[in-house]
Amino acid sequence: MAKLIDTIQLPQGLRSLNAEELKQVSTELRDELIDSVANSGGHFASSLGATELSVALHHSFNTPEDRLVWDVGHQAYVHKMLTGRKDRLGSIRKKGGLSGFLKRSESEFDTFGAGHAGTSISAAVGMSTALQKTHPERFTVAIIGDGSLTSGMAFEALNNAGALQLKNFIVVLNDNEMSISPNVGAMSWFFSKAITSKTSTIARNHFKNLYKKGYVPEIIYKAIDRAEEAAQGFIAGPSMLFEAFGFRYIGPVDGHNIDDLLTAFAHAKQQDVPVLIHACTIKGKGYEPAEIDPIKWHGVNPFDRSKGEFIAAKAAPPPRTPPSYTNVFADTLADLAKENPEIVAITAAMAGGTGLDRFEKVHPDKFFDVGICEQHAVTFAAGLACEGKKPVCAIYSTFLQRAYDQVVHDVCIQDLPVVFAMDRGGVVGNDGETHQGVFDISYLRTLPNMVLMSPKDENEFRHMLKTAVSHPGPIGIRYPRGNGLGIELDNELKALEIGKAEVVCRGKDVLLICYGPLVSYGETVAQRLQSELGLSATVINARFAKPLDRELFAKEIPNYATVCTLEDHAVQGGFGSAVLEFVNDEGVQVRSPIRRFGIGDIYVPHASQAEQHAALGYDAKSVFDYIAAQHQTKRVVGL
Amino acid sequence: MAKLIDTIQLPQGLRSLNAEELKQVSTELRDELIDSVANSGGHFASSLGATELSVALHHSFNTPEDRLVWDVGHQAYVHKMLTGRKDRLGSIRKKGGLSGFLKRSESEFDTFGAGHAGTSISAAVGMSTALQKTHPERFTVAIIGDGSLTSGMAFEALNNAGALQLKNFIVVLNDNEMSISPNVGAMSWFFSKAITSKTSTIARNHFKNLYKKGYVPEIIYKAIDRAEEAAQGFIAGPSMLFEAFGFRYIGPVDGHNIDDLLTAFAHAKQQDVPVLIHACTIKGKGYEPAEIDPIKWHGVNPFDRSKGEFIAAKAAPPPRTPPSYTNVFADTLADLAKENPEIVAITAAMAGGTGLDRFEKVHPDKFFDVGICEQHAVTFAAGLACEGKKPVCAIYSTFLQRAYDQVVHDVCIQDLPVVFAMDRGGVVGNDGETHQGVFDISYLRTLPNMVLMSPKDENEFRHMLKTAVSHPGPIGIRYPRGNGLGIELDNELKALEIGKAEVVCRGKDVLLICYGPLVSYGETVAQRLQSELGLSATVINARFAKPLDRELFAKEIPNYATVCTLEDHAVQGGFGSAVLEFVNDEGVQVRSPIRRFGIGDIYVPHASQAEQHAALGYDAKSVFDYIAAQHQTKRVVGL
Repeated sequence: MAKLIDTIQLPQGLRSLNAEELKQVSTELRDELIDSVANSGGHFASSLGATELSVALHHSFNTPEDRLVWDVGHQAYVHKMLTGRKDRLGSIRKKGGLSGFLKRSESEFDTFGAGHAGTSISAAVGMSTALQKTHPERFTVAIIGDGSLTSGMAFEALNNAGALQLKNFIVVLNDNEMSISPNVGAMSWFFSKAITSKTSTIARNHFKNLYKKGYVPEIIYKAIDRAEEAAQGFIAGPSMLFEAFGFRYIGPVDGHNIDDLLTAFAHAKQQDVPVLIHACTIKGKGYEPAEIDPIKWHGVNPFDRSKGEFIAAKAAPPPRTPPSYTNVFADTLADLAKENPEIVAITAAMAGGTGLDRFEKVHPDKFFDVGICEQHAVTFAAGLACEGKKPVCAIYSTFLQRAYDQVVHDVCIQDLPVVFAMDRGGVVGNDGETHQGVFDISYLRTLPNMVLMSPKDENEFRHMLKTAVSHPGPIGIRYPRGNGLGIELDNELKALEIGKAEVVCRGKDVLLICYGPLVSYGETVAQRLQSELGLSATVINARFAKPLDRELFAKEIPNYATVCTLEDHAVQGGFGSAVLEFVNDEGVQVRSPIRRFGIGDIYVPHASQAEQHAALGYDAKSVFDYIAAQHQTKRVVGL
Repeated sequence: MAKLIDTIQLPQGLRSLNAEELKQVSTELRDELIDSVANSGGHFASSLGATELSVALHHSFNTPEDRLVWDVGHQAYVHKMLTGRKDRLGSIRKKGGLSGFLKRSESEFDTFGAGHAGTSISAAVGMSTALQKTHPERFTVAIIGDGSLTSGMAFEALNNAGALQLKNFIVVLNDNEMSISPNVGAMSWFFSKAITSKTSTIARNHFKNLYKKGYVPEIIYKAIDRAEEAAQGFIAGPSMLFEAFGFRYIGPVDGHNIDDLLTAFAHAKQQDVPVLIHACTIKGKGYEPAEIDPIKWHGVNPFDRSKGEFIAAKAAPPPRTPPSYTNVFADTLADLAKENPEIVAITAAMAGGTGLDRFEKVHPDKFFDVGICEQHAVTFAAGLACEGKKPVCAIYSTFLQRAYDQVVHDVCIQDLPVVFAMDRGGVVGNDGETHQGVFDISYLRTLPNMVLMSPKDENEFRHMLKTAVSHPGPIGIRYPRGNGLGIELDNELKALEIGKAEVVCRGKDVLLICYGPLVSYGETVAQRLQSELGLSATVINARFAKPLDRELFAKEIPNYATVCTLEDHAVQGGFGSAVLEFVNDEGVQVRSPIRRFGIGDIYVPHASQAEQHAALGYDAKSVFDYIAAQHQTKRVVGL
């Protein structure tokens, strides 16, 4: 039998369907989603939980004229399926395929690009403010998870939306009591208490009866606006919270019940003030393994649908996969925290992503998950440092952007010893533009008191972590997404000298100054130059982007006909730029311009990391080809 | 008669005083504060409003062992007077004198440096978390204004404090219904409603009576934790809000009533959960002109105490003071908004500081003050831009740091046409380290799609604003604190060509490439070189830091023995760094290293702007002296 979703024009066709048919559409979409992700991988559990929500939204609202603004995008796969991208779902997060997040250039239904959490309400407030005059009949709907709602900017936006008294403005709180990891924060507890409390319903009814019977005098109701809803808030909590921001609260609504959702949306469309619909959903809904362990199934590799097992797990384990930088970080930090009782670790809702879930198992009392609150995480760390602690903030490079002012104002100006462990430094692969960690050297090296370093491999990484926790001021350590090289790990950890680089191999024709894991590209290039062209290269592992090893650089740079810098970072203001500043300011002689390999002035779309390095021209092959061509040219012109 | 404050050891001596004596101390301190600020200027109205609060805090808490964490610092002058800095209050904000904000290096009582809003609770959570183990008996008290509380990070911190269930942790909300300008946001309205509503008190009592009389069944009270307080929140609002974050709410308290404050603090010290004390104060309290117009008296120049008039106003008006960049911005934008109906202006609680109060008078419907919410301001602007508006975000350079991720993720990646009007770009004078706008070129020029410019004078500024609102992508325009040069303003505004510089004057010996208002230093230097040394200089007004005028620079730079760049910005990654990248990457020949004038790798303390430029070595005299010395050296060695 033909599927209903294949017989209608999406999403317009949804609007003439009845509730029963919408349920069928939801079932069909969920089924296809499971098949597609089982086959190709992707973010999974969040979108399963938002299936009915997506169907009901596109039914109840006249998209794209009405604006749906999805937060983050993890939950938006079904939205993509409903808006012309069902057949391409298998290409998601692959080079040239669909983005794993929302993207304005991908569809007119993606009204606002996202990837970082907490932006949707702000963007929706902006859109709605503009629409109030040009198209007052249009609705703007922000859909935000309870995790994202812990981010400060979401609160800023709620507060502003209420003040602007926007009409046709709706926030849907998709509350699955989860961000990526289980949610944290006092408010989260408050939400769940309100939803689960059976007594709250009883009490609410009692209160209503009391009023009807005349036991509660009218003055209590008159004392506050919208008395009945406030009375609900009195018991339910979340209502009162959102009422405080000038919102009308509808909920909690069962986010998997199409009938309830349609009723809620219809009710919301009648209001003349901003509305918050509190929809409760189950992350992973409809695929049992994901319901049971939604964290494991948040973003997944291909899996066997019937068995609920990942495909990769079935194959024979590869012979000694090198450990991920993430795990090396967590385990090394756990070891260091045994030696140094002052070390504490902080994550902003990324315990799994940063590896700190491993640290937490060893040091539960030294681990802090503050929620999706990078700003608070950094200033919280500054406060800890004031009291003699040695806080390590583990925040992805891309997310540290959210806490830039806190890094400047609360840590660096005061020269406090906070360690910034910047995971996912460099291009990050299939997450794409929004998640690239490729600006951190530029935005951090301009800051006085900051020390910046990056290891060439997982063994050096461990020594750098020791260095970081031994340093008396702010220090950042960036390391890439992915695995190390599989080399031996030293048992004893030694702090490196700040600002000292390392000569990895010596030659005379070419100098390759490499930052971080690109040292391995430098080594590959050196080997190929030797074996294929008979050229010898010196490879420097810079270790520090700030301060540079001025002595070594001053001595080495003048000696080579070709000098290159390699970094997994934007070249504007990056590591190579720091080298240029040094060379210029110190009057170091160079025989020819320094070639800076790195990312040009573009945002890097999703693909694998290897594909990205190659496309951007700083993989080992590109560097080799450049030097070979230079050499060829020089030979031709007789230099 | 000797003053009581002069007979006791501060702040310890406060602790043995009774309430009457503390009132006397408050009166004496307020009196000295008014005298001191009348004489020397400074932030004023906030500290007047926090006088009793400061006295009561230092009486009730064992500072510095107990930690007081003041937000921002505008309100902390009396705190400074109480902690050994009374006699130096007249030096505040002057070179070598007291900082106008809090500063760890200035006093052990300044537990956390501040200047930007909203950081205090986060820092206090960090301190308290550390103290729970080492000194559980110590109290940590964050004092935050209602304006600062609108910033997202304050909410993040509240949420985390509740989750951590901190003991001996107190937040004092100093609620004067003001930030710097009148407060905005739905929550602000909600607060004032709760405080002023007389019916709320009546209703609260009725409700209590009902319960006592048995009309309200116990199940309503049992249905929620801490029923009585919640019942208060039911009526009062703010209580419920903070209860949602796991705080116990005490208030509202009259923040000018010593007895009430002492009672509130004593009560707070008894709690075993985080406490929020809601103290209501009057900004400017105790000096009538400031009470009447607290915005005017927020930060002031010296004034005549008895007349309530600013001293400067009494002198004969100077002959044609040039307009401030701030006012030129606001007035020009107001003109542009008459031509282009899509232009809207956004401020984050700095309507006065950014000049947008002037814009608002002309275009009240195109003006948005979102509160101290830079993050939301930028993403709100992005949303407006999605709907065809041309939003102009007027945010000081230093505060734009707070919205860095939003600039990257919400504006630049999506290439949305948002204008960033960055006032106070460069050193800002007496506000000091926390307010310097000296990193924006570095953190913004690394971002693809971004255009950056800065005008040489107020007339060019107007053309640049026209350029900005005509540009189809993200564009930043930085301009300094202070006045223009007093030159003629063109009537007709023309958009400049993006990335085109201007040759201001032509010479042959020296090239000065200047960014923004430092062009005037370049001109001064050129004149002195000519008249004193017979050297001729070319001065380029770069106009754009991104993109650079590659064509002009490539043509000019090779022609001079001495090439200098001048910028009012950190040299690490700044404008000169961009020039070096260009020169290197294009293989432009230079005869000697380019001398980059700007701020070295240090945070710049408070002083006047002229003092700062001189101390940092990039005022006209320093540049001239450098070139003169170079010239001298070359003559000596016979070059």
